[in-house]
Amino acid sequence: MNVPDDVRAAMRKTNEVFDTQVVGRQNISELDRVYTRNARVLPPGSPMLEGREEVKAFWQGAIQALGLKSAKLTSVDAEAVGDCVIEIGRADLLVSSGDTITVKYVVQWKQEDGDWKWNVDIWNASE
Amino acid sequence: MNVPDDVRAAMRKTNEVFDTQVVGRQNISELDRVYTRNARVLPPGSPMLEGREEVKAFWQGAIQALGLKSAKLTSVDAEAVGDCVIEIGRADLLVSSGDTITVKYVVQWKQEDGDWKWNVDIWNASE
Repeated sequence: MNVPDDVRAAMRKTNEVFDTQVVGRQNISELDRVYTRNARVLPPGSPMLEGREEVKAFWQGAIQALGLKSAKLTSVDAEAVGDCVIEIGRADLLVSSGDTITVKYVVQWKQEDGDWKWNVDIWNASE
Repeated sequence: MNVPDDVRAAMRKTNEVFDTQVVGRQNISELDRVYTRNARVLPPGSPMLEGREEVKAFWQGAIQALGLKSAKLTSVDAEAVGDCVIEIGRADLLVSSGDTITVKYVVQWKQEDGDWKWNVDIWNASE
């Protein structure tokens, strides 16, 4: 757990943009503040997505299909390596049925345009 | 793709140990050559596993449950960051029914005891 406090704060800010802006308001363009330009996203049951256009199309569809209401992201472990952070985390996803789906994830974080963003993003079901 | 050739060769060697020794011969103790001592493994449908004992118990059960015959691992992208490598890959898993299951994965590699090993390992279904 060697990640500086200012980087942790920046990571929390990015996660809040995802939760409140992207998921909460379905403001898909805010994904530019969440993912790097060359981000790779590996959703369960889908081929790897590459770049913001594919990532935006995926989340637009997934948020609507699930009726996703919020995404609370909790860091379980984070390690600074080189100019990156490797994070293991837990996401609690509130969906329109009222159920909460819990998934675990690994994110490689990189700094881009002054913000810390998700450069590689993969998750799967916790149970 | 800034990973030196000798590191790539070491990564391939580790992957071959997993395929031929662990999966092919069900020699579970060879996982010591594959995973770091403090490895975290995030299998779909399971809580996170931590450390070699949990990892060995998982693979012993999974290999038998699936009738896993081989695991061909293909690097899709690998990036050296600090003293680690972050790899995105594809695994083609041959199971006893004769079917091949394809999954995609992200592995954080670290060097330990002279070998390159899996320190964080997460995967999910490709379709």
